[in-house]
Amino acid sequence: MTDINSFSDHINFLKIEIDKALQKIPVKDSPKYLYDPIQYVVSGKGKRLRPILVHLSGQAHDADPSDLMKVSLAVELLHNFTLVHDDIMDGDEIRHGKPSVHNKWDNSAAILAGDGLFSLAQLLLTNLPIIVFQRFNEVALTICEGQGMDKEFENNSSININHYLSMIGKKTGALLGLSAEMGALLGKLDNHKNLFEFGFNLGLAFQIQDDYLEIFGDESSMGKSLGSDITSGKQTVLTILAREKDPVSWDKFVSSNSNIQGYKEYYESSEIKIEAKKLIDEFISKSQINLDVVPKEKRDTLKSFSQLILNRKY
Amino acid sequence: MTDINSFSDHINFLKIEIDKALQKIPVKDSPKYLYDPIQYVVSGKGKRLRPILVHLSGQAHDADPSDLMKVSLAVELLHNFTLVHDDIMDGDEIRHGKPSVHNKWDNSAAILAGDGLFSLAQLLLTNLPIIVFQRFNEVALTICEGQGMDKEFENNSSININHYLSMIGKKTGALLGLSAEMGALLGKLDNHKNLFEFGFNLGLAFQIQDDYLEIFGDESSMGKSLGSDITSGKQTVLTILAREKDPVSWDKFVSSNSNIQGYKEYYESSEIKIEAKKLIDEFISKSQINLDVVPKEKRDTLKSFSQLILNRKY
Repeated sequence: MTDINSFSDHINFLKIEIDKALQKIPVKDSPKYLYDPIQYVVSGKGKRLRPILVHLSGQAHDADPSDLMKVSLAVELLHNFTLVHDDIMDGDEIRHGKPSVHNKWDNSAAILAGDGLFSLAQLLLTNLPIIVFQRFNEVALTICEGQGMDKEFENNSSININHYLSMIGKKTGALLGLSAEMGALLGKLDNHKNLFEFGFNLGLAFQIQDDYLEIFGDESSMGKSLGSDITSGKQTVLTILAREKDPVSWDKFVSSNSNIQGYKEYYESSEIKIEAKKLIDEFISKSQINLDVVPKEKRDTLKSFSQLILNRKY
Repeated sequence: MTDINSFSDHINFLKIEIDKALQKIPVKDSPKYLYDPIQYVVSGKGKRLRPILVHLSGQAHDADPSDLMKVSLAVELLHNFTLVHDDIMDGDEIRHGKPSVHNKWDNSAAILAGDGLFSLAQLLLTNLPIIVFQRFNEVALTICEGQGMDKEFENNSSININHYLSMIGKKTGALLGLSAEMGALLGKLDNHKNLFEFGFNLGLAFQIQDDYLEIFGDESSMGKSLGSDITSGKQTVLTILAREKDPVSWDKFVSSNSNIQGYKEYYESSEIKIEAKKLIDEFISKSQINLDVVPKEKRDTLKSFSQLILNRKY
């Protein structure tokens, strides 16, 4: 494992460089109807985990830094495009501690801003090998499939843990997979499939943890109100594990309870909280095995990045 | 000018081939939430003018037919993606004689279907020169700008004819421009900028005519209810020319009138109808000059295509 302080410095350095580069993407001033919301999104307070992963993976594969920066920004814009559209579909009013785009403007402006972000992302990929462009759009379509499944699953009590894992694999796993894969694709070693799997498994862990923190996280750190999944009828790892374990108790509980404290207690006493934590550990472990193809001396930052995901509080 | 019957046969042949190829685009069955609306859109009754233009331009530049088919389908999907999202933003409930996607399903399904169509379009462009991908996405962003201007212009009475031409240039001109440009880019001659201009001017004529037919067209042929621009506060070539010509009479008329027959009579008696027709002719003429770079013997089908646009009744 690499030295914790130097790793954390490296991550902070990358985040600052990514934020600077995001500001330098040529975004015009007008029409304001299109570009004001885009500027708002690009200057938002994202954690930039996906572009950081592009750089870390690329550095482990000796990829060209300027190619990495282009791809990392494209991945971040793709991520932001999907968030802007998902927030409309899911009625989420807060994103990164600020009003979501459709909340600050309206649905039409948010639809168009998402479309513009997606187009801008594509334009960052010209001058790179065509395989980059192909994988980027294959994953974009996969993310749409994941969102489609997520919408289908709402209020559907026949969804089991395998359906759920398939959905979050498409919705979250594929983009972290792509981020790690891109670093390898732009570098010298033919590791891209393993690196996709690494990011994919990391993404599953990340999303399960997201569901977990939605109930057990710290509201002020999350930058959004907790428990919104409860009211929206969204399937989460917790609701699915709880229903699978004891459908009768679960149905009885849900029909009589609607506050987050009640859910916390249910998940704790039924050991669903522990089971979810175990699933997170399981996918983190899987992701570490996918790194075996990376030369030992270059594996450390990617392992530390996994720990960062595992230890996040928000 | 090429023989009218053989030209019309050629267009019909292309349309059938394009429709067949659209059906063969690998679109999965599930998740149905994503793919049912996409299938619905792809099997819709579009006129396929843009993909036909890709083929005609490509044939005039000896481009490879299978490359042309890929690009023509990508252009058609890009067009359909923008229609699905624009219909949400503009509240248009009918498209090509059928319920629009957000009307048949809902806004969320329509947002996602548009995103999926855009991703599918990109995936048709792999294995083609990177310049195709670049121009495709530059134009996609331009179309977003045009839609942004269109939304900004709603109910804004300071918009003049130049603002309007700039807006429709981005919203409609650029995509017909791209369609014509692609044929040249994939072919042997370095005509792509002139061909873009040809399609761009044709697109301006097309959109002005669209506004014109919205008032003076045949409702059953148009596949939608006429006059919806009147109630939505949309700027059209007719409203702008009328306001520019005589703002006092126009404001007085608008405040006292809301039926399509009244508008017809106003546009006829004030000669706005004639002025709009003149503008259409002007841009068609401009587009013909852009064709001078094309060898004379290969120019005919592109000229006939312009006539097709000029003579359409819907």
